Amino acid sequence: MSDSAVAEPTVSFDLDAWIAERLVWIDNALDAWVTADRPLGLDHGAPAQLVEAMRYAVLDGGKRLRPLLVLAAHEAVGGSHQAASYGAALRAACAVELIHAYSLVHDDMPCMDNDVLRRGKPTVHVQFGEASALLAGDALQALAFELLTPMDGTVPCVTQAKLCALLARAAGSAGMAGGQAIDLASVGLPLTERQLREMHQLKTGALLQGSVMMGAHCTLPDATALDALMEYGAAVGLAFQVVDDILDVTADSATLGKTAGKDADNDKPTYVSLMGLAPSQAYAQQLLTQAVTAVRAAGLADTRALVALADMVVNRGN
Amino acid sequence: MSDSAVAEPTVSFDLDAWIAERLVWIDNALDAWVTADRPLGLDHGAPAQLVEAMRYAVLDGGKRLRPLLVLAAHEAVGGSHQAASYGAALRAACAVELIHAYSLVHDDMPCMDNDVLRRGKPTVHVQFGEASALLAGDALQALAFELLTPMDGTVPCVTQAKLCALLARAAGSAGMAGGQAIDLASVGLPLTERQLREMHQLKTGALLQGSVMMGAHCTLPDATALDALMEYGAAVGLAFQVVDDILDVTADSATLGKTAGKDADNDKPTYVSLMGLAPSQAYAQQLLTQAVTAVRAAGLADTRALVALADMVVNRGN
Repeated sequence: MSDSAVAEPTVSFDLDAWIAERLVWIDNALDAWVTADRPLGLDHGAPAQLVEAMRYAVLDGGKRLRPLLVLAAHEAVGGSHQAASYGAALRAACAVELIHAYSLVHDDMPCMDNDVLRRGKPTVHVQFGEASALLAGDALQALAFELLTPMDGTVPCVTQAKLCALLARAAGSAGMAGGQAIDLASVGLPLTERQLREMHQLKTGALLQGSVMMGAHCTLPDATALDALMEYGAAVGLAFQVVDDILDVTADSATLGKTAGKDADNDKPTYVSLMGLAPSQAYAQQLLTQAVTAVRAAGLADTRALVALADMVVNRGN
Repeated sequence: MSDSAVAEPTVSFDLDAWIAERLVWIDNALDAWVTADRPLGLDHGAPAQLVEAMRYAVLDGGKRLRPLLVLAAHEAVGGSHQAASYGAALRAACAVELIHAYSLVHDDMPCMDNDVLRRGKPTVHVQFGEASALLAGDALQALAFELLTPMDGTVPCVTQAKLCALLARAAGSAGMAGGQAIDLASVGLPLTERQLREMHQLKTGALLQGSVMMGAHCTLPDATALDALMEYGAAVGLAFQVVDDILDVTADSATLGKTAGKDADNDKPTYVSLMGLAPSQAYAQQLLTQAVTAVRAAGLADTRALVALADMVVNRGN
């Protein structure tokens, strides 16, 4: 099913090369922006020890899926590395990654998932202590909004306001944080498939979909494009979590770079526990088809990266 | 010294009445905006149990000093309850309070100050559990930026962008979170007065000063006004912490509504431990004079509330 959905464009598109080029842009920007050296109007930079924990959390060779979705959506609506809107897109890409990174730092803490391993490294609270992990997460969230609001005139105010609006809603109580709260409250409880889907649409889907919409809003896209990207973002966001649940039972810790089997051990409801393994795999492929169909029908400037990223999300091994 | 600094305007200004009127506006707005019912473009509101913890943290009869500073600064540059800019000022007022509230929730957690009492009530993690407190704080920070970016056209994009820029910098690693990190790292260490002042300028001063600047930026004030308000905000922000340190040794827990003597017990450096009690009190009065002098010299539209609030900060009993 995956092959028929994406076969045509992947023939002519080298996703690995596309990603490799953008990872350099993203990682260089994060390296430059997550620093102590950001003058304030006050006389101070950020304290070095806090910035060290923030950098540890962010500059870790993550897959950067969310930033890549930002840049792919920006390109889908006609943006490019040369466009005037690229500065906004790169800031949006880094901002969503900072929100994602902070959520992992807090999620790993003892009062939440109590995870000691993340991407093959000790988690932030193991490395720096719980209090520093708490503060580093808090500061990463603030920094995301700082990145979206440069005071140097490089990003139009209307774009700054729109990006902040989208990110705040994707990250907050009606988005990621809300989904985590439902997740927390649902441990050991039976959920219906609809309840599970709603939880994941908030917990993981909102920020993935938000990434797509932020990339698009760095330009001034038309309503047809926005609708298609909204549908793409929703399908990819949900597929990501379905595949996460599948990998939690099919992959080992070394492959995942985190502790496998955690969800089953913690009696958390998952797609696999609810639907079974094979139906979950079929559902992920169905969501891929839905995402690809949506963007192909919308007359976008370039859907190749979006399509290939959706395929990567569904058919990844970790 | 305080009397000579503020005697003239307080004769003709009823601060209690000014505050009482604005507390109604602020508390009504917080009550309306910290809710589960904020549609997203997604189909979801925020989960009820998370919103309950957020409301518990915010709707608690706090003194609302930061929101009051926002509104006072807005009035100082010619804004009023009738002005078109009032909508932005009220959103800014609530946003700074949400940041303040989230910082208290996280600061009270066991891995930080481990406080069980706040404003006479059990702290959020005691009432709702640590994981919920962590998430409620995270969601409150995101909600602050959501409030600053309404999509209904009531706040100009240029104002939205500026307010987000100011708040992100005041809250982040070169502001409040950075100050907390220095505080954390300095327990049991000897600090110079300069180091202590720098720590507090970040930890408490940045958000208090940010409140003043956000209120001012709801209009388009001139550079003289902004410079004066920047100086006022810096002096009041610092004075607030000096007085906090004084009250930690001179007031009891019932008066403070939190555990008194905590800082001394935890071997935290304070102005009192460094300078002594009487010199700390004199320093607070000196900062009050500095704040009042700055705004009186700047030709602002109305400095009465700013002056009276500065006096209240320095001469408060809790």
